[in-house]
Formats: sequence, structure tokens, C-alpha cells
Amino acid sequence: MSAGVKKDFPATKVMSGFMELLPEEQIEFDLMKDKILETFHSFGYTALDTPVMERLEILRAKDVGETATQIYEIEPRGEQTESKSGLRFDLTVPLARYVAEHFADLSFPFRRCHIAKVYRGERAQKGRFREFYQCDVDVIGHGSLSIRYDAEIPSIIYQLFKKLDFGKFTIRVNNRKLLQGLVDSLGCEASTESILGVIDRIEKISSEQFGEQLKELGLTGEMTDKLIKFFEIKGTNAEVLDGLKSFNVDNQDYIDGLSELVTAAEFMKALGVEEDYYKIDPVIVRGLSYYTGTVYETVLDDYPKLGSVCSGGRYDNLAEHYTKEKLPGVGISIGLTRLFHQIREIGLVECSKKTAADVIIVPKEDANIPCALSVSQLLRAGGFKVDVLLEDMNIKKKFKYVDRKDSRFTIVIGREEEDSSSVTLSYKGEGGKFEKLQVAQSELADKMKGLC
Amino acid sequence: MSAGVKKDFPATKVMSGFMELLPEEQIEFDLMKDKILETFHSFGYTALDTPVMERLEILRAKDVGETATQIYEIEPRGEQTESKSGLRFDLTVPLARYVAEHFADLSFPFRRCHIAKVYRGERAQKGRFREFYQCDVDVIGHGSLSIRYDAEIPSIIYQLFKKLDFGKFTIRVNNRKLLQGLVDSLGCEASTESILGVIDRIEKISSEQFGEQLKELGLTGEMTDKLIKFFEIKGTNAEVLDGLKSFNVDNQDYIDGLSELVTAAEFMKALGVEEDYYKIDPVIVRGLSYYTGTVYETVLDDYPKLGSVCSGGRYDNLAEHYTKEKLPGVGISIGLTRLFHQIREIGLVECSKKTAADVIIVPKEDANIPCALSVSQLLRAGGFKVDVLLEDMNIKKKFKYVDRKDSRFTIVIGREEEDSSSVTLSYKGEGGKFEKLQVAQSELADKMKGLC
Repeated sequence: MSAGVKKDFPATKVMSGFMELLPEEQIEFDLMKDKILETFHSFGYTALDTPVMERLEILRAKDVGETATQIYEIEPRGEQTESKSGLRFDLTVPLARYVAEHFADLSFPFRRCHIAKVYRGERAQKGRFREFYQCDVDVIGHGSLSIRYDAEIPSIIYQLFKKLDFGKFTIRVNNRKLLQGLVDSLGCEASTESILGVIDRIEKISSEQFGEQLKELGLTGEMTDKLIKFFEIKGTNAEVLDGLKSFNVDNQDYIDGLSELVTAAEFMKALGVEEDYYKIDPVIVRGLSYYTGTVYETVLDDYPKLGSVCSGGRYDNLAEHYTKEKLPGVGISIGLTRLFHQIREIGLVECSKKTAADVIIVPKEDANIPCALSVSQLLRAGGFKVDVLLEDMNIKKKFKYVDRKDSRFTIVIGREEEDSSSVTLSYKGEGGKFEKLQVAQSELADKMKGLC
Repeated sequence: MSAGVKKDFPATKVMSGFMELLPEEQIEFDLMKDKILETFHSFGYTALDTPVMERLEILRAKDVGETATQIYEIEPRGEQTESKSGLRFDLTVPLARYVAEHFADLSFPFRRCHIAKVYRGERAQKGRFREFYQCDVDVIGHGSLSIRYDAEIPSIIYQLFKKLDFGKFTIRVNNRKLLQGLVDSLGCEASTESILGVIDRIEKISSEQFGEQLKELGLTGEMTDKLIKFFEIKGTNAEVLDGLKSFNVDNQDYIDGLSELVTAAEFMKALGVEEDYYKIDPVIVRGLSYYTGTVYETVLDDYPKLGSVCSGGRYDNLAEHYTKEKLPGVGISIGLTRLFHQIREIGLVECSKKTAADVIIVPKEDANIPCALSVSQLLRAGGFKVDVLLEDMNIKKKFKYVDRKDSRFTIVIGREEEDSSSVTLSYKGEGGKFEKLQVAQSELADKMKGLC
């Protein structure tokens, strides 16, 4: 740009509500994402990918309350004569549309996972995102789906959070039929939904407020006492199941819900979920969502303020707005963007790795570059990720590059090394201390593998 | 739905111009995507992720011709008072914006890759997509960037297409400075761009048309003859370089371009690119795009009709519309969605794997499920992806499920197996023949590893 000419650049800051990461943060984010996908895969769930855009009538087929006002709408382009579309606000609507469309080509029970971005034009708030990753895992049956899958879903979550290593966590499990049956058995005139709405808030309000809100709905003191007594059922999982049994509600939903909970708990055990990591918890409702049976929440025990980091449940009919086929399912979802934001804020993740490379090769002089390149090929063949510094720089600048990248290994190649068919390998040894040694080129890959 | 009630469902077919894959196709697509990312990583390129939406003034800062009319625009939502945004149409604009924004936090040369979807509201045509994956790999310098990186980029492509295994391929390499210098040296009044435009079409038009179009631009017969003679330079890479040298154009751009080509070829060799897999080809222009030096195209030798499956080049200044910093770079891009569509059409990829699972475990009776689950945990710990069939089905239906999924291994567990602490393992042996054997549970994972 010539001097004196003013050039205005457009704003390059990422728009508010969108997460954009530096390379070192992206590396940690991707590590988490990879662990999630790997765990979903290990249970035989196949990854799907659907368009980010869906027809507006697909997105709006179901009443989704406030979310409907948050859909980003898109004008058709080209000769597209189709109806208007919008950006998906979750991965469940696309799954329902997909299963309805490809029904004949799928085999059921259909296990699928989907890790992708969704969009909600929400009011800008700290920790709220307009573009965020959801990591969904669902299994869909045709006509029916065994309750045993309700045990598989939390056992996936158990394996995953063990791997993520954020400390002790608890998967809270309940069954909405239990609550449904209990509330119905009260014989109150208020709608079950309105009463469940109050129960859903039970952990956020005082017991006085709880009583008052139920009174407003027309519950008698006796009814409210019964509910309060019910929510006093606590203890080990076995004790809670016993308590629920002996609470003796004469209602088929209640009986079914209890039997489902017993089965789910039994199979979670068979799937190796440690007793201490899940809690049968009669208080979980999961909002006024479309769950009809088992419901899940997951909390990190040391960080209760984060709330549930992973929630889901069983639904009777996935795609009722798109097909006549009855498709019951059970699944769970992780809001990865939000979770990553939170664990970074509390310092649970360190973003120290500034490059994808395991090793940086530094040729001292231009003359050493061909040798550096041939060593790089050897190491790549050995499975290493290798960055060769090819820029013309003085050696000081070269080491500054190495310092900033902070890769596990650094290899320097100069004339001395070339003459002796060796390289100088630096790496962080025990206690983070820097170690240096001379290694023959032919033994380099093996030596480095031994140090990993 | 009760009989007699008509319910109209919205269209569930994917919108035209959008690719949506069945699980077995998605598995193959993801395998390709993984190989691409793995190869980019092996050269130390760090993956980035940027929002799908960008401000319209960012997307429109540069004149991108017809593409500008294809941008999907998005209405702001919530209390968003920001300017209108649109869906990105490539990954280069987001990279430029990213580097301009995070300049101070990056170290240069900055190697980044990005595999993600982009959007163009194009006219619907077979093989053209409105949503498609691009796989970009670029290295950006600050102020300057060594020509050696122009050799690294095609060597990444070489490693990648070897791995993808679509048969013999050729990376065609040229340098636009060479053409620029040649055309300038003609001393013709027509703009260099208009002449390069004709050269860009040389492989699509006859030599008569070539002559006529140049004549229309005001080139004399002598000038045209010189160009024709230039494009007759053919042979091995060494012969072409010799031919270009002895063509003797007295122009600095030509001399620089030639010297860059020589260096790039030299370092590609040092990076192990086989002589037979790249071709210095003076005819490559890469449209009227913003490339200023080295340019690349890649063709699959057995499928020339596919055109270039991977193109790119060197550019002088990545982010001139967003920052004052000078950021030269070199990179290449694969249009993955289109490539996958093409190789599937010509049968280069078989989509036979219908599940992410390596093994399906079939409990004969409900009583065998706990044992099936404990075996599944053993195998997962051994690195296998395991699907346990948990649905209540008769054995015939269970085997239909297994048949449709077509996983590598099937394990059946019944009373006999439980009694002998073993399982019945079926797998496809040599020649695709089905083999069956009885294996002790404790030896199962090792046995299966041996068969992989």
C-alpha cells in the first residue's frame, strides 16, 4: 500500500457468539472431539453427516418453542425454486428426517453418532454460543427398542468421561414414567406437564417455594406431602430402587418405569459401569422435552456449577412429523463447544501444544536441507508428524520458531551431524528437563519411539 | 396415526445440490477424509476450524466474480446488531481473516490445514454441489516465504494420492512468472491477463482457434509462433527445464520463474516424490485466479476426464484486504465432495462396510446377554469396535441383522459357549470364505488381532 493512502479494513474479529480457537486451543479441542468419536465408534455407532441447511418446513414441523425464533433463515440462490431453508438448530431433527428418508436402506436397531455444528440465533450471553458443536449418539428401533439400549447409552458416557479425565463424575438416571405415574396417581386436576414443570425446578427453588407453586396448581397438602416424601427417597442405588418399590404407587406407568429402571441398572452393571459413577435419582425430569422414559444427566462432581454436561433420554417416536413408521429411540448429547469453554475457564485443560508436529527438524545451513528432508521422510514413514523448517532464517530466529512451537522433539542437522550420519535430538525428559543426544540417522525412529 | 386421518409430511428428500450419504457410503467418505487429515498432519500442519458464517463485508472484500452472486446470505437473529453475514464460499477467505485477526499469536511460517464444508448457491448441475467439503493445506510466511515450501505442498499431495490408491497420478507443476515474463517479452499491446486467458484454454481448443483468438487480441503471426513454439517444449522434467532455459527469454519474471521451478523440482526430489509422478508443464495457468508463482494441478492418469482433482499454487499476499502485513503463501485444495462423487461413479470405491463395528456379538438367548456384554468390554479394551445385538428378536432375525451389517467378525454366544467359557467366532477368511471356530473368551482379543 503506498504511503498516505488510507485503506479501511473490515472487522476481522470473530462475530459474537462464535467460538474461534488459536492453534494450541484447537489441538486440545480436537483431542476431545477425537476421544468422543472414538468412544462412540467403539460401541459400533456409525458416524453420519447431513447438510447444515434443512428446509424450513422440516425445521418447523415440531413445536420447539423459543428455538423456532432462533433459526437462521437462508434465501434461496441460483435457480433454486425450492422452499426457503434454515440452519439446523440441533442434530435430532436432521436424524429424524434422515431416518424417515432412508428408512428402507437402514437396518434396525440403527446406531448412529453425529458430531457437528448447529446454530441458534440466541441473545448474546457469556458462555452461550450461536454456533456450537453437538456430539449426539442415538440408537433407533423400528416398532420397538429394547430397554437394554437404555443401559448402553450411559455406559458409553461412562467410558468417555473416564477417558476425558475431568475427575469423578456422576451419571444421574431416572425414568419419566415413574414421575408420570406418581403424578397421575395423585388424582389432581392440574395437568401432569405443569406439575412436572415444578418438579423440574426442585433443585433451584426452596422447599417453601416448591409447596407454594404446587398449591397454586391446586394440589392439596396431602398431595404435596406425598411428592415431598417421594423425593426424600435417597441412598445407594439399591436403596433407592427399594424405596421406589415400597413407595407402592398403584399406577401402570409407575410400575413400568420402575421395572425399566431396574433393568437399565442391571445392564449398566453388566457393561462395567462402576456403581459409584451412576445414581438413580428420582428428581431428574429433563425439562418439558420429548423424553418419554429413561432420562440422563451427567455432572462433574468437582464442578457442580457447570450443571449437566451431557443429557438425553428415551423417546417414543423419533420421526412422527416426517413418517408413519414408529421409531422409538434413546440417545444422549454433549454440547462440546460449551463444555470446552467451561473446562478451559476452570483450568481443566492446558493448551500447551502449539503444533500438530511431534518433531521439528532444523537444518543449520541451507546445505543441510536435503539431509533434513530425507530424515523427515524416514520419520514420517515411522508414523511421526514432522515439521521441517525450510525458511531462510538466521539460527537465532530458527530457535525462536522451535521455542514457540514447543513440540516434543527437536532435531538439529548441521555439517558435523551430516559427516557422522547422525542428528542431534533434543527432547523433554523426566521432570520436564531438556535432554540432548547424538543419534545415528538409521536408529532415529526407533530411539524416538522408545522415548514416547 | 389413527386410520382415515390424513397427515401430510414435509419432503424429506435432501435438497438438490446437497450430498447425503448412506452409512456404508459415509464410512468410505470418512476413510478418505481421515487419510487426507492424517497426511496433512504428518507434515506438521495444524487443523483449524472457523465459523461457517462470516460477515458479508469480509466475504465481499475481494472481487470474486460470479462467486459473489452465489453467497447464501443470512438474516441476523436475536439482538444481533452486527452486519449481515453469509456462508463461506471457500476456506481461503476465512484463513486470510483468521491470520489477519490472530497475527500476533501465530508463529511463521504458519502451517495450517482445514477440512470443512463451504457453500455456493450454484445452478443445479450433475456433479456440482451447493454444499461441499474442501480440504485445504497452506503455509503462510510473514514478509517472505521460501520457495522450498512450493516443493513441500506437492510432496504432501504425492504422499496422499499414493495412500488413496486411485492408481497412477500426475502432479502438473508450472510457474506463472514464466508465462508472465514470456507474454510481457512479446511486446504486445493486449493485456497479459487476456493473453493468459487464451493460454488457459489451450487444451480445450484447436490450434487454429488458439491462433485466431490471439490474432483477435492483436498478436502478430510472429508472436503467436513464438508462443506455439514455447508450448511445444516437452519431454522429461530435465528436458523441459533445459528447453525453457534455452528458449532464452530476456525478461526478469521469466528468469525468476524458471529459477523457482528448478528449485521446486530439486526439493520435490529430496522429499522423495518419484520423477514419474510430477510433470513440469509450461501450459498450466490455473485460470485468472490470484496465483502469482508456482501453480499445481493433479490428474488421475487413468481418468483424465475427471480433470484436476487437486489444484493450487503460490500467492503473493494472502490477506491484503484485511491487514497491512504482507503474508505470502502457497497451498493446495481438494474438492472432496466432488471427488468422492466422481470416484464412486467410476467404481473406484466400493461401499461395502455397513457399520463402524469390527465385530457384532449375538447372544442366542436373553440369558446370554450379560456374558455378551462382558465379552464386549474385553474386546473394546483390546481396541475393537463392538456392536452387541440387544434387541429381542428371534434367531433368524438376529442373523439377518448380522448379514446386513457385514462386519468383519461375528461372535455367537449361547449356553454351550457359556458352559465352556468360549465363543463361536465367524470371520471371512482367505478368498472371502466364511470360517468358524471355537475360541476361549480369554484368548479372543489376541486371536482376532492375529486375524486382522
